[in-house]
Amino acid sequence: FLDHPEGSCLIATGGTRVICTASVEDGVPHWLRGKGRGWVTAEYAMLPRATHTRSARESARGRVGGRTHEIQRLIGRSLRSVVDLSRLGDRTVWVDCDVLQADGGTRTAAITGAMVALHDALSRTIPGGPPILEFVAAASVGIVGTFPVLDLSYAEDSTAEVDMNIVMTESGRFVEVQGTAEGEPFDRGALDTLLDLGSAGVRELIRIQKAALGL
Amino acid sequence: FLDHPEGSCLIATGGTRVICTASVEDGVPHWLRGKGRGWVTAEYAMLPRATHTRSARESARGRVGGRTHEIQRLIGRSLRSVVDLSRLGDRTVWVDCDVLQADGGTRTAAITGAMVALHDALSRTIPGGPPILEFVAAASVGIVGTFPVLDLSYAEDSTAEVDMNIVMTESGRFVEVQGTAEGEPFDRGALDTLLDLGSAGVRELIRIQKAALGL
Amino acid sequence: FLDHPEGSCLIATGGTRVICTASVEDGVPHWLRGKGRGWVTAEYAMLPRATHTRSARESARGRVGGRTHEIQRLIGRSLRSVVDLSRLGDRTVWVDCDVLQADGGTRTAAITGAMVALHDALSRTIPGGPPILEFVAAASVGIVGTFPVLDLSYAEDSTAEVDMNIVMTESGRFVEVQGTAEGEPFDRGALDTLLDLGSAGVRELIRIQKAALGL
Amino acid sequence: FLDHPEGSCLIATGGTRVICTASVEDGVPHWLRGKGRGWVTAEYAMLPRATHTRSARESARGRVGGRTHEIQRLIGRSLRSVVDLSRLGDRTVWVDCDVLQADGGTRTAAITGAMVALHDALSRTIPGGPPILEFVAAASVGIVGTFPVLDLSYAEDSTAEVDMNIVMTESGRFVEVQGTAEGEPFDRGALDTLLDLGSAGVRELIRIQKAALGL
Amino acid sequence: FLDHPEGSCLIATGGTRVICTASVEDGVPHWLRGKGRGWVTAEYAMLPRATHTRSARESARGRVGGRTHEIQRLIGRSLRSVVDLSRLGDRTVWVDCDVLQADGGTRTAAITGAMVALHDALSRTIPGGPPILEFVAAASVGIVGTFPVLDLSYAEDSTAEVDMNIVMTESGRFVEVQGTAEGEPFDRGALDTLLDLGSAGVRELIRIQKAALGL
Amino acid sequence: FLDHPEGSCLIATGGTRVICTASVEDGVPHWLRGKGRGWVTAEYAMLPRATHTRSARESARGRVGGRTHEIQRLIGRSLRSVVDLSRLGDRTVWVDCDVLQADGGTRTAAITGAMVALHDALSRTIPGGPPILEFVAAASVGIVGTFPVLDLSYAEDSTAEVDMNIVMTESGRFVEVQGTAEGEPFDRGALDTLLDLGSAGVRELIRIQKAALGL
Repeated sequence: FLDHPEGSCLIATGGTRVICTASVEDGVPHWLRGKGRGWVTAEYAMLPRATHTRSARESARGRVGGRTHEIQRLIGRSLRSVVDLSRLGDRTVWVDCDVLQADGGTRTAAITGAMVALHDALSRTIPGGPPILEFVAAASVGIVGTFPVLDLSYAEDSTAEVDMNIVMTESGRFVEVQGTAEGEPFDRGALDTLLDLGSAGVRELIRIQKAALGL
Repeated sequence: FLDHPEGSCLIATGGTRVICTASVEDGVPHWLRGKGRGWVTAEYAMLPRATHTRSARESARGRVGGRTHEIQRLIGRSLRSVVDLSRLGDRTVWVDCDVLQADGGTRTAAITGAMVALHDALSRTIPGGPPILEFVAAASVGIVGTFPVLDLSYAEDSTAEVDMNIVMTESGRFVEVQGTAEGEPFDRGALDTLLDLGSAGVRELIRIQKAALGL
Repeated sequence: FLDHPEGSCLIATGGTRVICTASVEDGVPHWLRGKGRGWVTAEYAMLPRATHTRSARESARGRVGGRTHEIQRLIGRSLRSVVDLSRLGDRTVWVDCDVLQADGGTRTAAITGAMVALHDALSRTIPGGPPILEFVAAASVGIVGTFPVLDLSYAEDSTAEVDMNIVMTESGRFVEVQGTAEGEPFDRGALDTLLDLGSAGVRELIRIQKAALGL
Repeated sequence: FLDHPEGSCLIATGGTRVICTASVEDGVPHWLRGKGRGWVTAEYAMLPRATHTRSARESARGRVGGRTHEIQRLIGRSLRSVVDLSRLGDRTVWVDCDVLQADGGTRTAAITGAMVALHDALSRTIPGGPPILEFVAAASVGIVGTFPVLDLSYAEDSTAEVDMNIVMTESGRFVEVQGTAEGEPFDRGALDTLLDLGSAGVRELIRIQKAALGL
Repeated sequence: FLDHPEGSCLIATGGTRVICTASVEDGVPHWLRGKGRGWVTAEYAMLPRATHTRSARESARGRVGGRTHEIQRLIGRSLRSVVDLSRLGDRTVWVDCDVLQADGGTRTAAITGAMVALHDALSRTIPGGPPILEFVAAASVGIVGTFPVLDLSYAEDSTAEVDMNIVMTESGRFVEVQGTAEGEPFDRGALDTLLDLGSAGVRELIRIQKAALGL
Repeated sequence: FLDHPEGSCLIATGGTRVICTASVEDGVPHWLRGKGRGWVTAEYAMLPRATHTRSARESARGRVGGRTHEIQRLIGRSLRSVVDLSRLGDRTVWVDCDVLQADGGTRTAAITGAMVALHDALSRTIPGGPPILEFVAAASVGIVGTFPVLDLSYAEDSTAEVDMNIVMTESGRFVEVQGTAEGEPFDRGALDTLLDLGSAGVRELIRIQKAALGL
C-alpha cells in the first residue's frame, strides 16, 4: 500500500480506516540484548480529524494519553503472541497503526490490519519464511440495548451497555479477553454469548487476512 | 487510617500493601457541569521502593507511564459502576491508591481497598447515607504452569501463562473481565475455570470489606 | 476524501502523498475575540514510516520539532493571505496536513493541497460562498549540480546546492519566497532563474487545484 | 518497616508521618566514576492527601516543583555530611522520603528518619560496619507571636513570624542553618535563641534515633 | 540601563555581572485577588556562557532546575519583606535577574541588584512614592581554609568549607540566614563570626544601592 | 566583551542589542563522528523584558517556541556556510545569541554579531588562523506603506506589508533569502527592489564587522 515500509496495509471495517505499517530494524531493545530473541512493538495514533470533531494532536499536547498507551500495549502483546521471537533474531519490528477515519472498533481493526502488515514485512525480510506461528485477529462485540452485536459502529459503541474486545488466534485460543461494563454490570450468561459471537467474528477476519495476503 | 482524608484504608493481601484514600471535593469536571451528576476518579502510584529494586519516580521522569494510566482508568471505572452519581450531586471524589509494598495483584488490591475508602468517605459526607448501589471488589487469578491460582504473588505472576483480573459486584455481575495470555494463548475451558475461581475470590473479599466497615 | 472533515483532499506529487483536511470550528483564539475576524491555522505531521527509515513520533518524544513548527507557520500564513478573514466571521479553520509518504517537497505539497481542502470546507459552511480572494499554491525549485529543477524529489533535494520554496497567488504575487543555500551560496542570476521556474510551476498547480474542485 | 528496601523506617512527629527507605545500588553517577567514592542522594514526595486538602501529584503535573527540589537537595546534603563516601565505595544510596501525613516539619522529620534508614541499610550491606562518621538530625524551630517554639505543627508553622530549620550533628556542629522571616525580619537576639532551642531538639532526636536502631 | 523595563540595573561584584529588571503589571495572581494587596515575584537565569564552560539552557532541557527554583524563591521572598504590599495595590512586579557573567555570589548579587531595579520601577509607577519600607541587600560569606571571607569569588566558593548567604535589611534585621557546610560541619563560634562579617558587608552594599539611586 | 567565552560581542542596531558568544568545545554531534569535520550550531533567546511588555521565559513554559527554533536554525545555517568545517576538525562551536533589548531585526542582528563572535573565537583557538572562507552578515528590509526600508525598527516592522531577511556573503552571494508578505502579497518588481536594498545593507555591515575585529 505504501512504498517505503517493509509491510503495509489499509484496513477498512465499516467507516473505520486504519493504515498499518511494519518496519523491520536491526537491533533489539537494550533489555533483550544478547538473548537471541527479537521484539515486536506497536504505536497507535489518530489523525486529528479522524473523528466527528477535531481532537488535538498528542504531539501538540506534549504527552501520549492513557487510552493511546493502553491500545499500543494491546497491539504489541497480540502480535508477539503469534511470532516466534527466537526465529526473528536480532531484529525489532515497529508496527504503526494510524487511524485515518474512526467509526468504532479502531483498536480491533488495528490489530487485525497489523497482523497483515507484519506478515507482509516478515515475508520479505526473514530468510526461510515469516516466523509466524499462526494468525491472530481481533473483534469488538457488545450489548446494545439487550442485543449482542458484532463489530460495533461508533453510534452503537457509545450507547453500548457492555463493550468487549476479543483477540483470538487461528487455533481458537484467546490472547486477550477484555469486557467492560459501560453502564450496568453484566452477568455470566451475557459474557458467554459475547465470547461466542466474537469468536465467530475473529474466524471470519482471519479468512479475510489470508485472502488479502494471497494465502 | 489517616487523619486528613474523608475516607482511608490500608489493604494488605499477601506481601502487597496499598494505602487508599478518598477525598470529596465540591465541583465536577467541566464536561459534567450542570448535568446534576457527580464524578469519581482515581490515581495510582507506587513508592519507588515498593518493588525489589528501586524504580524511578514518575514525577522525576516527567510523565505518567502507560501501565499507570491503564490502572487508574480501571479503578475509576470500577468504582463508578457502583455509585449512584446522580445522588452524589455536584461533587468529585478523588481516590488515591499508593502502593507501599508490591507483591503481585496491586491493581486488584487497589480496587478492593478503594471501595472501602470510598464507602467510608461517602458515609461521612453525603446526607442520607452513601450513594452506593452495591459493593465491588477485584481478584487476580492466573494459570501457573497448568494450575489455576487465586491472588497471585509476584513470583507466581511473573511466571504465569495467563493473568486475569476480575472486577465483580456483590450481585455477581462483572464490571471488568480482563484476561491476558503472557505466554501461550488459552482456550475457552481455561477461561471458564478462571472465571469461577475469581468469582469465588471476589465474594470472599466483599465479605471482608463489609467487616472492615463494621457493616 | 474522508467522511468527517468539512473539507479534505489527498495530494500526490511524485512519490509524495499528503492528506489535507480542513475543520471549521466556531470561535476564535482569545487574542482575536471581539474583532470581527476569523482565523486559519495549520498543523503538519509525518507518519513514522512516511520516510525511508522509520522516524520517532513527535508525540512519543513529547515535543514538536523545529522543522515542524516552521512548516506549520508557513502553511498557516500562506492560507491566511488569500482568505478574507473578516468575512470568515467568528470561526477558526484548522487545517491538518499529514504526510503518508514523503519523496521531497512535502511542505509545498501540503500548502497546495491545503488550499483545496480549505476551499472545499468553506464552500460547504460559509453562506454566500467561500471567502477566498484568490488561489494560492506552492512549488519547490532548486539547483541540482548546475541545473535548475522544478519539484525536487527526495533524491534530488538531498543533493541540491540551493533549495527554494515559492508560495504564489493566482495573480502572480508572492506570499513567501524562501531560498536557502545548502552548500555553496548562490548569486543573483541563479535566484532569478529559480523564481521564473517556480512561478511557472505554481501557475500549473493552480490550474490543477481548480480542476479538482470542479471550478 | 518494609520488606524490600535495604533500610527503612516510619518516623512520626506530632501528626507528621514520613516513610523513609534507603536503597543501595551498585555504581555511581557518571561524574563520580573512577574517583573511588560513593554517593548518597534523596528524593522527597507527599502523597496527594497528606495535607488537609488534596494536592495534585507532581507526576500528573509533569514536573517536580521548586519546594520539592529544595527539600531533596537539603536531605541529600545533610546525609552526605556524615557519611565517609570513600568507604562507601562504588555504590549509590537512594533515600526516599514519602510523606503519608503532614502536620508541619516534614523536611526535618524526613532528614531525621532518613538517617535511621541510611544507618539500617549500610549496616546490612557494607562489610566492616556502616561508614557513618556520626549521627545527624534536624529540628524546626520558630517564633510564633513572640515565643520561640520547637517542632512547629502546621497550625503554628503557618502563623510563625520566623521559621528556622537546623541540621546538626551529634558533635554539635551545624550542617545547615536556614532561618527565614515569613513576616517581620528578625534580629540577632532572636536568632541566638532559636539556635539554642533547635540544638537542644536535635540532641534529643539523636538519642531517639539511636534507641530505634538499638544502639 | 535598558529602555523598556520600568526599572533596571546592571550590578557588578568582582567578575559577576547581573542584569536586573523590574516590570510592573496590572493584576495579581488568582489566589490574591480581591485581597487589596499586590505581589512581587522573581525569576533568575544564567546565560549559557556565563560560566567557564558552557551549560545547556533550561529552555532546551525543558525544565527549570532545582537550584534555579531555590534562588528564585529566595529573591522573591527577600524583596517582599521590604515592600508594603497593601500600598502596591492591584499590581504584580516581575523581577528578572539574568546573569551575564558568573564569578561567585550570583544569588546575593541578584538580590542586591533587584532591590535597586525594584525601587527604580516603583518610583516611576506608584503615585505617592515607592511603597518600600526599608532597603534590603545580601552578602555571601564563607570559611576558606580556616579564614572567614566576605563576597567569595568562584575560586574561593568552590573550595569553601562553609558557604553562607545573609539577607539583611537596613535596620539590621535578617530576612534570611542560610549557612551550609560543604565539607566539614561548622561550630557555633564560626557561625557567629560569619554573621558579623556578613552584616558589615550588607551595610556597605545598602550604602552603594542608595548612591546608585541618587538617594 | 565577556571574560569566559572564546569569542563574544555586543551588537547594537537601532534600539536592538544582542550579546553573541561563541564557545568552542571538543567533540562533535554523534552523527558527525569519524567524518573529520566540525560543527557550528546556534541558540537564540530573548530576556523576558527585552520587549515592551514582559514575555514569559521559555524555560518556565517548558518548551522552546516555533519562532525560536526557526531563528536558531537560520543562524546556524548562515554561519556554517562560511566556515571550512573540515579545517575546524573535531570541534563544535556553540554560538549563543541573547537579546537584551529588542527593537526590530533581532534575527539579522544576531547573525551579524554571531559572525564577529565566531571569528573572534576561532582566531584564538584554531592553529593556523580561523577556518573562515569569507564574511557573512544579514539585513532586514521591508515595504512600509509603499516605501522600501532598510533595517526596520519594531514600529516599522509591525506595520510592514512585506518583511524580508537577506543573508549574504562578502562575495555578494546569498545564503538565505526569505521574503514574507504580512499583508498584501508582493510582485516581482518589489522583490527586486528589496534585494538591491538589502544587498547594499549587508555590504556596509561586513565593513563594520571587519572594523570591529581590527581587520
